[in-house]
Formats: sequence, structure tokens, C-alpha cells
Amino acid sequence: MTHTLILMPSGRRGQVAEGTTVLEAARQLGVEIETICGGRQTCEKCRVVVESGHFDKHGITSSEDHLSPRTPNEIELLAKLGTPEQRLSCNAQILGDVLISVPEGSRAQKQIIRKTASERAIEIIPTVRQFYIEVEPAELGAHRGDWGRVQDALAAQWNLNNLTIDIHALRRLQAALREGKWTVTATIWNEQRVLDLHPGYYEGAYGLAVDVGSTTVASYLCDLRTGKLLATESMMNPQVSYGEDLMSRISFAMSRRDGLEVLNAAIIDAINQLARRAAKSADIRAGQIHEIVMVGNTTMTHILLNANPQELGNAPFALVNRESMDIKASELGLRLHPAANAHILPAEAGHVGADNVAVLVAEQPQLQERVILTVDVGTNAEIVLSSPAWMFSASSPTGPAFEGGQISSGMRAAPGAIERVRVDPESKMPRFRVIGEERWSDAWQTGADAPLEAQPQHLAAGICGSGIIEVIAELFLAGILLPDGRFNPEVVSASMFWEQGKRTGAYILARAEQSSSGKPIYITQQDVRNIQLAKAALYAGAKLLMMRAVVEQVDEVILAGAFGSYIDPKHAMVLGLIPNCDLEKVHAVGNAAGDGARIALLNRERRAEASAIADRVRYIETAVDPDFQEEFVKALHLPHQSDAFTHLEGILPKIKVVEPARRERKRRRRASNV
Amino acid sequence: MTHTLILMPSGRRGQVAEGTTVLEAARQLGVEIETICGGRQTCEKCRVVVESGHFDKHGITSSEDHLSPRTPNEIELLAKLGTPEQRLSCNAQILGDVLISVPEGSRAQKQIIRKTASERAIEIIPTVRQFYIEVEPAELGAHRGDWGRVQDALAAQWNLNNLTIDIHALRRLQAALREGKWTVTATIWNEQRVLDLHPGYYEGAYGLAVDVGSTTVASYLCDLRTGKLLATESMMNPQVSYGEDLMSRISFAMSRRDGLEVLNAAIIDAINQLARRAAKSADIRAGQIHEIVMVGNTTMTHILLNANPQELGNAPFALVNRESMDIKASELGLRLHPAANAHILPAEAGHVGADNVAVLVAEQPQLQERVILTVDVGTNAEIVLSSPAWMFSASSPTGPAFEGGQISSGMRAAPGAIERVRVDPESKMPRFRVIGEERWSDAWQTGADAPLEAQPQHLAAGICGSGIIEVIAELFLAGILLPDGRFNPEVVSASMFWEQGKRTGAYILARAEQSSSGKPIYITQQDVRNIQLAKAALYAGAKLLMMRAVVEQVDEVILAGAFGSYIDPKHAMVLGLIPNCDLEKVHAVGNAAGDGARIALLNRERRAEASAIADRVRYIETAVDPDFQEEFVKALHLPHQSDAFTHLEGILPKIKVVEPARRERKRRRRASNV
Repeated sequence: MTHTLILMPSGRRGQVAEGTTVLEAARQLGVEIETICGGRQTCEKCRVVVESGHFDKHGITSSEDHLSPRTPNEIELLAKLGTPEQRLSCNAQILGDVLISVPEGSRAQKQIIRKTASERAIEIIPTVRQFYIEVEPAELGAHRGDWGRVQDALAAQWNLNNLTIDIHALRRLQAALREGKWTVTATIWNEQRVLDLHPGYYEGAYGLAVDVGSTTVASYLCDLRTGKLLATESMMNPQVSYGEDLMSRISFAMSRRDGLEVLNAAIIDAINQLARRAAKSADIRAGQIHEIVMVGNTTMTHILLNANPQELGNAPFALVNRESMDIKASELGLRLHPAANAHILPAEAGHVGADNVAVLVAEQPQLQERVILTVDVGTNAEIVLSSPAWMFSASSPTGPAFEGGQISSGMRAAPGAIERVRVDPESKMPRFRVIGEERWSDAWQTGADAPLEAQPQHLAAGICGSGIIEVIAELFLAGILLPDGRFNPEVVSASMFWEQGKRTGAYILARAEQSSSGKPIYITQQDVRNIQLAKAALYAGAKLLMMRAVVEQVDEVILAGAFGSYIDPKHAMVLGLIPNCDLEKVHAVGNAAGDGARIALLNRERRAEASAIADRVRYIETAVDPDFQEEFVKALHLPHQSDAFTHLEGILPKIKVVEPARRERKRRRRASNV
Repeated sequence: MTHTLILMPSGRRGQVAEGTTVLEAARQLGVEIETICGGRQTCEKCRVVVESGHFDKHGITSSEDHLSPRTPNEIELLAKLGTPEQRLSCNAQILGDVLISVPEGSRAQKQIIRKTASERAIEIIPTVRQFYIEVEPAELGAHRGDWGRVQDALAAQWNLNNLTIDIHALRRLQAALREGKWTVTATIWNEQRVLDLHPGYYEGAYGLAVDVGSTTVASYLCDLRTGKLLATESMMNPQVSYGEDLMSRISFAMSRRDGLEVLNAAIIDAINQLARRAAKSADIRAGQIHEIVMVGNTTMTHILLNANPQELGNAPFALVNRESMDIKASELGLRLHPAANAHILPAEAGHVGADNVAVLVAEQPQLQERVILTVDVGTNAEIVLSSPAWMFSASSPTGPAFEGGQISSGMRAAPGAIERVRVDPESKMPRFRVIGEERWSDAWQTGADAPLEAQPQHLAAGICGSGIIEVIAELFLAGILLPDGRFNPEVVSASMFWEQGKRTGAYILARAEQSSSGKPIYITQQDVRNIQLAKAALYAGAKLLMMRAVVEQVDEVILAGAFGSYIDPKHAMVLGLIPNCDLEKVHAVGNAAGDGARIALLNRERRAEASAIADRVRYIETAVDPDFQEEFVKALHLPHQSDAFTHLEGILPKIKVVEPARRERKRRRRASNV
């Protein structure tokens, strides 16, 4: 005899045999209800709401008697939880037609919503899960060890077979079985390996996602059962003291006998610190973290593995391994749960590593029916051009200029850093805003006699990445910078400082009284040159991919990385950092690499997707490509020597002063030959 | 077109296609020729001797032209090796009928002969093997990491698929590939896991077999390619200082917070020492040992794993794991090759562990068409009764008496220890022999005026295990000990010392001038009692198995363990240590547990056999069996209260003086009640 079961909110319906539990019946209809105790009425994960029983022709009449009655144990448990009207789906048998709601918390496939420009749901399917079992007690002369008995129980009660056990878990096994009176909860990785055993019923599985950037290491501690983000901690990559960019790290690793060990110890120690801090702020211990997912560029992952990155210093830039890896975390020196797994996402090739794969996992540009340029700007920029039919990637050595390095007054994003700039096209005078102060500089009053409330919280201390982009773009828009990057010699302004007798000068962004050092903050000709070099590398990389994909223009630009979140798309395009594109279609998505790592931590199926992406992306090596060199030279101009920026119509200054510059160079050359 | 190939010494023959290499053709005929380089003419492992070509009707004429001509490379290589007349089977193609000898050294399936009573060949099929490969060089933008390229080469050149790589090997991979100019030798465990990579062609794989006894730890270093035993090292188990027997070790582990850690550190440190010593004497480093196979009783293996043995202290004596285990050696604290595997053989149950399984692997009594009793005497005795149809095992807590413990003058087998004893039935006077001195004590001259050459190398320092067995048996045969173990009050001898006014005494085995301490060496009544308790435990265990197997008598007795090698079967039986059996059928086989560990190290198929044995043996728990208690009481008598020893006919003394002893006890009881 069968009855109709309808499940809400999915609306699934079907016939189920009389006497089937709601838990099992839902499974038959394809709706997984959460359960840890496996139907023993201890975990209360499987609670459901009975909406009604008995459907008659006129509608649905409310009645619960189409389910088996509550047992005393169920009544007690539900009363304790304050939900006496609910049912344990593992206990309620179907005796007639019934309509049941499965609350969000009882669904096995939980999901969380990622809060970025492209809001998307992440299904929670972690590799680490917990299983409660009842184990046959040991008997005299029995032909099975305790681990054998646990294996039998996991096979019979959860259909888990061919399991291995970590030595750490093996050491705890006998005591846990006896303390739990032959009931234990097994913590199992990927339905393959028992990581831990706790007496009786136990809940608690945590994971850490880490984005190892060349400059910043960011970590995200998650509850693996709910997907909830419990803590975010980040710190500067301590390797910075051994070299700002990738090539100097590689050189350091090669130049000293212990170079690699020093770099490896620095990053491992940093991750351990982040794990401890994140755990502390979530009120757990780092020893409870059962899995860590790590991403980073290829140099960072080599160093993480304590594998020498020296091959990445020269063509053909061979990786030690391109595929994803699962390694026991303790073998890498990570101090998490002693049996914890470390998963490293796959890389693409050359310098485009797991962090870029993570960006693609998070953003999935390849699923959009558009040509999308995804740019992750850091010390190295990774660029992906995608459409549903193809994906190309490249790496551009932008250097540290966008992060404030190689800029005379450059600094990291911190209080006092100039982050926004406007230059008046008429007066040629600047105003700016610093981090930590709401008001623009033209609203400040400084000096001893200024009222306290009119004084800024922070004076200007330097310029951070987004400030640099804006000031150069604004100087160009105001006609102070010529398209070739020189200061326009025609400009006369109190903010321009010209070196005596030379045709070179500097622009005064902050006056002495606006500056925390008491000295003016300048933009020098060399600063402009360095930004030109960085942006040209990025633009040329994008252009090379467009040439290889044979597309004339991009439909959308995704800016990943913290840097992308702070820059104004208009300024980026005026500078010629990104190609011509509808400004409405330029999005910043924050640390998408970190988000991708978190997604891979919470959903093991997305790891397979990561591998598929890594296999699919066609990597273009820029370093030795003559087209890249040619595009690079053209891209040194503001915004570009020849490309049209139709979406900046009416914004870009009209003057093109290319020829005079050439004449000037010739003149100088002649002069120096004299 | 095909030709006839005959291979010697196997005599295999068959038709092979023209142009097939001798290497491949031999494989087709089921004869594996060794090769490491995989046919690239670098490893010279596959050398064969061409006996003749062309078989005519009248016999075989010698001619080599039925093989393809030698290449310059082959000529050079063979000349360098001093065997210009041989051929590389990977290079020589079959062009006509040919008769070829495969020398011992070129056979893939090598074997060694185990030198024990039961001489048997061990085939060499190690888990760790080495494979030379040529790897595709890295190319710019290639979609494969270096490990991917190595995987491709191993799949294409050796048909090895689904390999994983140890992090240690991964770290060496890139440098090895470049140093070897894109040729490397991979060291692979069980065709599953790459443990190491060496540039170019490389040979060298070593393994260590370790028998962890309660008292002695013995190690055997083997060359995994040839099976050759390179070094044997042993030492006392340092855990002895925390308890002589298993129960006291278990108590120690439970009584202190760090008890288990102390015991674990002691044995791990001991094994590391043995590995270093063995490696040194074989002129290699411990870091070159790629696999270790360990056996021991269940308490020893628990402590090895750092798993608390406390459950073994009480019924039902549950094991944490009964099956064999493969664990990364470094996770156990072993300092071998960083990626080395540690294999622990399976256990049976209770206290019968991997060491007993190893004995059965080495001796294979279950393959004999006889009822065989296999006894491994140590601090605990493991007993197996077998026939082709069944196997029963038990453990008997004999205690340390057989190893000289709990004996007033007991000592370990060392120079000066009395190891052989004879007592004259007429004069009741003893003579003995000590370790380190060829002559019996009645040939010694001692004292200041004795000529130097007549003086013994060593005076008597104490009695070791085999000496204790002999002296008690001899005292019984001489009528000095009664069947119930008391000294016979009727005996009058200069060697008997009676306590004044008491009916108890001691037997003087060595006089003051024969002893290194200058004091006589006695056998006390308590010594006799302790030996009676130990031998009764052993005998009762054997008897219990006979009852369970429903056999009246055994056809053969195998004495395993060092102890068994030194005792005389006749004396063992006179004492009632082993049941009635043809004395010719009592064999000592030495450290069979160590041999079994060595076999499992050299032959991975025998590991499967070990698991099959462990599954098959039916374990009988003696500790709580009432039959055992009853048999134990009966076995306290010399040789036994009721069992007939037909094979000692004419040897055993006729007198049975049981009744007087009983009367005596009754008399004493009455006296004490007064």
C-alpha cells in the first residue's frame, strides 16, 4: 500500500510505501534531509514540520494522524528544543497522504549566499563529515580488532566502505569507544579516511580557506556543517621582507643555501598564526580545523610545498605539479588537527596559479554568454579572457607600483593614505581624500589656529594604489600630463614644480601643511613612468589574449582583488589600464581568489570544477611573445597610442601631442651627440 | 614469421615473432628477465648468454647469427663489464631459432635460501622497486607540470598508472629531471606511490625487518633487489627497565600520565639505533631504507603505534586493530628514508600478535600433512597447533623464568652463563659448561697453582635459560628432584645442601672455586617451583589446543625463538615443557619471527599470505578457560601428573613418589592447625 508524500518548499511529490519513515521517503523523492545519528533519535537534525495530512477533493484538511505517533523519546527531545509541534523525520512513519515542510536547517544540502557584485549561492557539500555509529562491543576471542568493528558499523550503518584510518584517530579509537559506551562519532574525509573519533554523539567540523598572496595572506574560517563564515583574518605575507615581487623571492630562494627554507618557514608560520587567530575569535582551537584549502600563484604554492620555485624564474617556467593536491597538513608543518587534510587547487601554467583558478571558480565568467576579461591585479596580474567556447589566460609582471611600491610617496592602504584624487581642469589644483577621514582635503582646515572639528582625523601620509591610479588619470584629464606621460610644459600652476632649467618637474598633490611629515607630497615624472610601465604590462596582456581569441572587444571586465574594489572604473580606463568597454560593465568583485578557496572548502564538487577549469584554460606565455612586446610599447601611452576608447567619448582630453615628443627626443639625441 | 626460442635453465620453449627482442620474447614465454632501464641499454641487468642458434635435426650447432647484430653501444657496455660474449636481451632481436641461458643475476624473480632447519627458498618480490624513465622535456606554455610529465612517462614506459607522489619526492622532482637531462629513476612503493626520484639511472633499495620482542629487538637489513641480508643488529628492548613482562609494561603505560609516551619513545629510539647501526655496517645510510617491516606481540605493536595497550590488560583483550597496517614511517617517529613505508604484519587476537603470524609465514606448518605444535618461547609463549584443515593458537604467560628471570642465579645468555648441565645418577654430582668456554667444568683446573692453559676462559657467573631447563631435567633424571618438584629427602650428596631442621634445601651446581663471584651457584627449591609454573603454563596451553582440535598427540614440534635453539629436545620433554612426541621430530628453527618479517619484507605476496593466516587461525583464550586451569595443575608435575611420555621410555626415572608428598602436606596442615 502506498501514500502520497509532498515535500515543501521543493514541491517534490511521489508515492511511498506505507510505514516508510519520512527521512527515507524524502530520500526516495530526491530530497536529502540532514541526519548525523542515522535515525537513532539523538541528533535532532532531521526535524520537519507536518503541514497537513489527508488530501481530499476539496482541498487539504489539517490532521497529523497520517504519521505514526510520537515516541516518548521524540516527545521529550522536541519539547527540550522548544519545537513540540515538529516531528523527527527518522521516527515518523508515513501511514497516509501527507504534506511536509523541510526547514532550511534540516536540509542536508545547505547553502550560503556569497555577498559580492555577482551574488550567488554556494551549496554546502564539504569533504569532512561526521557519522554517529553504534559499534558491536568487543568479545573474548573475537576475530576483529576495534577498528574492524568500527569499519563494520560504518559499512552497515552508513554504507561507507574501504575506509582507511589516520594514525591519530587509531590512537584515540579504543578510549573513545569505551567512553562512549560503544557509540562514537567518526569524522571522515571524503568518505575515505577517518580523521578522528569522539565518544558518543559529537558535532564540530571546521575548515580554513587561505589565499596566499605575494603581499597579503587572507584566511577564512568556516563551519563545515553550515558553511557559515566564522572569522576572517589576514596579515602581510612575511616573505615581503625577502623580496617585494615574485622574481625577487625566487632569486632569494636561489641565492642562499637556506633561502627556500626561510621563505617556506615564513609562510607556514604565517598560516599557523592566522589559523590560531581565526580559531580564537571563533572560540574554537586550531586543532579542530580538519581541512585547509589553499590558493596562491605558482611561486607561492611552490614555496608552500617547500619545493624550489627556481624553474619559475626562467622559460619555460615549468611547474613541479599543475594538478590539485591533497597532502596531510602536518607534513607541510601546519598545526591544525593532526590528521587535517591540506588541499591546494590546481594551477594553470607559468605564473598563473591556483589563485586564478579560484577566481574563476568564484566568478564563473566562462558560464556567461559574453566575452569577459577577468583581471586580478596584485604584484603579478593574472588575466583571463573567456567566453563559453574558450578561455585564455596570461600573467603580466605589473610589479608593485599598483600597490604603492616604486612610487616616491607610495604606501599601502592604511590611515592617512591618499585614496581619491580630483584635479580641477581649470585651476589645475588638486583635492584628495585620505583613508580614515571622510572629508575631502579642500574642506580641511589645518594649522594651530584651525578649530579642532575642522581639522582632519589624519593628515596625508602618502598615496596608496587607488590614489595613484586616480591622480595620474586626473592629471591626464586636466591636461597636465601629455599622452606620452610627460608633464605638459605649457602648464602653469601653483601645483606644478619644474626643475630649474630642465623640462622635467613634479606635481604637488598635498601641500606641506596637509602632510603628516610637514613636507609636500609629490607625483614625480618617475612615478608616472612606473605607472605607465605597470599599466602597459596589464593592457598588453589583455590585448594579447584578445588577439589570440580573435576578438575585437570585451563585453565585460571583472576586477578581482582588493585593489580592484577601490579603483574607479572610469579612472582605470582613462589611464588605459583596461580595454575599451561599457563602464557599466566593469565590476569589482573583491578578493575572488579567497572566495574561490572558500567555495572549494565548502563544496567538494566545485574542486572537480576547478580541475576542469585548469585543464580548459589555454595559457599564453607573454614573456617571450613578440606581439606582447609590440602591444606593450603601444600601451605605454595614456590611454593608448592607437586603440580607440569609444566608451570614454567626451571624457578624454582632445589634445594629442605625440609628434612634439618625438621631435623633442630627436633634438635631445642630437644635443647629446654634440 | 616465427622462430623457436628455448630458455635455460627453465627449459621453457615457444614460438615467437621474428624481430621480437629476447627480453620481450622471454616475457611471452613466462620468464621475466630483470630490467631497470626498460630496454634503453643502460642498466645491463638483462644480460643473457646465447648458447646456440639454429637447431637442425642432428642437434644444435653453435652460431649467433639468429639474433640481430650488436649495436656499438651494446658492444661498448658489455666490453666494459668484461662479458663481451653476452648479449643485452633488450637489444637482441630474434631472427631465427635460438637457445638462450638466463643467468641467475638476470632473472627478475630472484630468490634466496633461508638457512634454517627447514631450508626453503624465498622469492624476491619487494614492494619497493625502481624504474628508469625518459621524460618529455618541459615546453613553454605546456599544459602539464613536471610531475604530470613523469606520470606520463611511467604510464607509457612501465604501464604504471594512478600513481601518487610523496611530498619528499615532489620536492626533489624538478632538480632530478634537470640534473638527469630529463631521465630519472623513480623509486616506487607497491606500484602506487613514488617515494623518491634520482637523476638518470640509479640503483639502491633497502629494507629493514624488525622483530620487536619484549626482551630483545632484532633487525635485519636487506638489499631489496637481491634479497641479500646485509647486516643483522640486535639489542635489548629498552622498555625492560619499565617492566620485565607484558603485564608490567601495560601497568606502566597506565600508571603514569606519560607512561605510554616513555615506552613508545624507548622502542622507536631503539629501532632508529638499530637502523643506523645496520646501515653503517652495510655502508649505506639509514636514510636509504625505503621500507621497514615490523612484527611483535600485540602489546609491542600497540606501543609501537603509540596506542595505549591498556585494553590488553583485561578481558576481553581487545586489539585496536587486527589487520596489517601500512603507515608512513616518519609518522611513527622512525628516521629512515623520509617517504619510507612501515608495514606491520597482522595479529591473531589477544596477546598473539604479528610475531606469531611471522613465525607461521616462515615455517608454514599448516602446509604440512601433520599435526604440528609450533611454540615460540619468550616472556610470553605463543603456541599454534596446526594441520592442513585447521589452526589454533593461544598465548601462555610463562613469565621470564625461561630467560633467567625469577631464578636466584639466573642471567641472560652471556659469557660465563651455565648453558649445559649433566648430573651423574650415581654420584649425584654435577658438571656443566659455560658460554665462552669449550670444556666441561670437570675438565677445569682452578686456583692459583693451576696451569694457565687448564684454567677456564670464564668462570661460572650464573645460569641462563637453557641451563635452567637442563639442570632441572637432569636433577629429576638423577632422582634428586621428585615428580612433584621437591628435593628428594632420601638423597645424600656433597652437592645437596639441606636447611637445618627443615625439609627444604638447594642443589650446588657450581662450587665457590668454579664461580666468578667466589660463592657457590645454587638451584633453590623456589627456582624449581618457578620453572614448574612456567613449563606448566606452556604445557597446559598446548594441551588446551589439543583438546579443542580433538587430537591425542602431535606429530612434530617446532621450537621457535632463540631459546628454542639452545635447549635439548630430550631435556625439554623430560621437564614436561612440550608434549609427548618423537624426539627426532622436535626441531629448533631459531628466530622464525624475524625470518617471517624478513620474508614479508622481500616478498609482497607473502604479506597477503600473512593476512590469510591471521584470518584463519582460531584463537583460544587461555586466561579464563577452566580446562586450562585444570591442565595447568596437572602439568606442574615432572614431567606430568597423568600424561604418558612414550617417547621417553627408558629415560624417565621409575619412581613415582606422589603419595608421600600428599601425606606430607596433610601432616603439615595438621601440624599448623595445632
